[in-house]
Amino acid sequence: MSLRLTFLGTSAAAPTARRNLSGLFVRREGASMLFDCGEGTQRQMIRYGTGFALDAVFFTHFHADHYLGIIGFLRTLSMMGRTEPLRLYGPPPAASFLPQVIHLGVEELGLAVEVVEISSGTAFAGDGYRVEAFPTDHRVRSIGYALVEDPRPGHFDVNAARAQGVPQGPLFGKLQRGDAVTLADGRVVHPAQVVGPARAGRRVVISGDTRPCGATIAAAQGADLLVHEATFGDAEQERAEYTKHTTAREAARVAREAGVGRLMLTHLSTRYDHEPEVLLRQAREEIDACEVAEDGLVVDLPFKE
Amino acid sequence: MSLRLTFLGTSAAAPTARRNLSGLFVRREGASMLFDCGEGTQRQMIRYGTGFALDAVFFTHFHADHYLGIIGFLRTLSMMGRTEPLRLYGPPPAASFLPQVIHLGVEELGLAVEVVEISSGTAFAGDGYRVEAFPTDHRVRSIGYALVEDPRPGHFDVNAARAQGVPQGPLFGKLQRGDAVTLADGRVVHPAQVVGPARAGRRVVISGDTRPCGATIAAAQGADLLVHEATFGDAEQERAEYTKHTTAREAARVAREAGVGRLMLTHLSTRYDHEPEVLLRQAREEIDACEVAEDGLVVDLPFKE
Repeated sequence: MSLRLTFLGTSAAAPTARRNLSGLFVRREGASMLFDCGEGTQRQMIRYGTGFALDAVFFTHFHADHYLGIIGFLRTLSMMGRTEPLRLYGPPPAASFLPQVIHLGVEELGLAVEVVEISSGTAFAGDGYRVEAFPTDHRVRSIGYALVEDPRPGHFDVNAARAQGVPQGPLFGKLQRGDAVTLADGRVVHPAQVVGPARAGRRVVISGDTRPCGATIAAAQGADLLVHEATFGDAEQERAEYTKHTTAREAARVAREAGVGRLMLTHLSTRYDHEPEVLLRQAREEIDACEVAEDGLVVDLPFKE
Repeated sequence: MSLRLTFLGTSAAAPTARRNLSGLFVRREGASMLFDCGEGTQRQMIRYGTGFALDAVFFTHFHADHYLGIIGFLRTLSMMGRTEPLRLYGPPPAASFLPQVIHLGVEELGLAVEVVEISSGTAFAGDGYRVEAFPTDHRVRSIGYALVEDPRPGHFDVNAARAQGVPQGPLFGKLQRGDAVTLADGRVVHPAQVVGPARAGRRVVISGDTRPCGATIAAAQGADLLVHEATFGDAEQERAEYTKHTTAREAARVAREAGVGRLMLTHLSTRYDHEPEVLLRQAREEIDACEVAEDGLVVDLPFKE
């Protein structure tokens, strides 16, 4: 069950030659999702080969660097003949604002666009996973997202099953799926006797733009991967507070407190465009498993066990 | 007197990995102008080093691939602290539409944006040149632009001036500027006696999206450079007519009929992204001095004489 992130844009408010505005493509097996869609995102998708077959777009908030790209992207989808509806999720004022954005100008879209406004809770439930929103702390209404997989069944212990006298074949499958089976001699074998405890699914959390906040820590509790904004470094602590962003060090502390497996920093101020290692160094003083994302970076996330 | 064009985006309705949406940067000595501003143009300006110090932006029409980039670009200018007003020119419905575009979302701009709606005639008069609009023939109201330099004074003939007894010095300058001078012996020397005929300034014409049309031919009469859209090739003649675009061959015929010095084809359908030479070959059957533009291409335009 593949789970792959492709960073499409890792710059903060303004693009640079090497970093585009915010956009993160997530593909989980057959499902494709986009988190934020800054100007130029459609071209980044072409450049990095993600394909355009999106199931949903999730906006963290409505500052221009996070949504402008949806306008042209929808027009391109329409020109390419997509008729399947596309759903856009975002915090208030998504319900009133996104329709303005979608229908700007003269182009008529050949696909229906459905807007779902959400503040917290399950935004989207897919097959074996869901995307949950949690409130964050930015200058405008903002949310983060957690992609949460359902727990997987525990390991099936073939030896234990044999020891119980279960014959290899369909009864193995039944036990694996959680059903008790009755053997030829009348004995009943229960799944708990041959199947280990359920194994956690993966959890990926995306902060969007925010100050460090408890809701992110809660959502990221034990996450396999936290993608957190790190607009500034230590030297701009005040500026981070004033603009309601996060420093790399603060993001690392959020990750540490949540006990995440891995932290990816993104949304870098242009001043760190050429020296992301400054941010990395500060973050690594707080947590080891930390990297700075760059445009085009692909992260494949395996199961922990 | 430098005159330089930088092609920022040479793809038609959708971007490709190598071609962005429409945008053409023109710098004439100290003045910088942008013609159309598709999504991602601000990043192309960074990539190709044009700088952001624009004096004006000229839109040919309001299809999404020609204007979406202005939204983010204005926000970036504002963040960078620009307070100098920026003027945007475009055909109807510029006056009602551009304000919607400019004020989309929550960002407040720190610079004033002035919108000038124009259908034809002089849009903008700079020092020694002007930008004129002419109506073109597209699916929505559309215009093309001609950057027209004032004529330059003729060559000053030093030998003729000496033969007339004009002493080298300030009187040379006076004659050059078109004033008659009186010599010590009372004789009057007129500029026509020592200065050749006025020399034409340069003329650059930008078609925008259009069918081939008489107004473009008229505007491009004798132009040094015509930048014409060539969305399609011969094989899509019908499609060109239906969508009100131009084939490469038709663009070349416009150029030939106008007697332009040089033709640059742009606004290529994605199907020609990897083989622009198909368009070039068809155009060159009509006119020799023809090239296909690509993103980042810089064209310096010298005076003819």
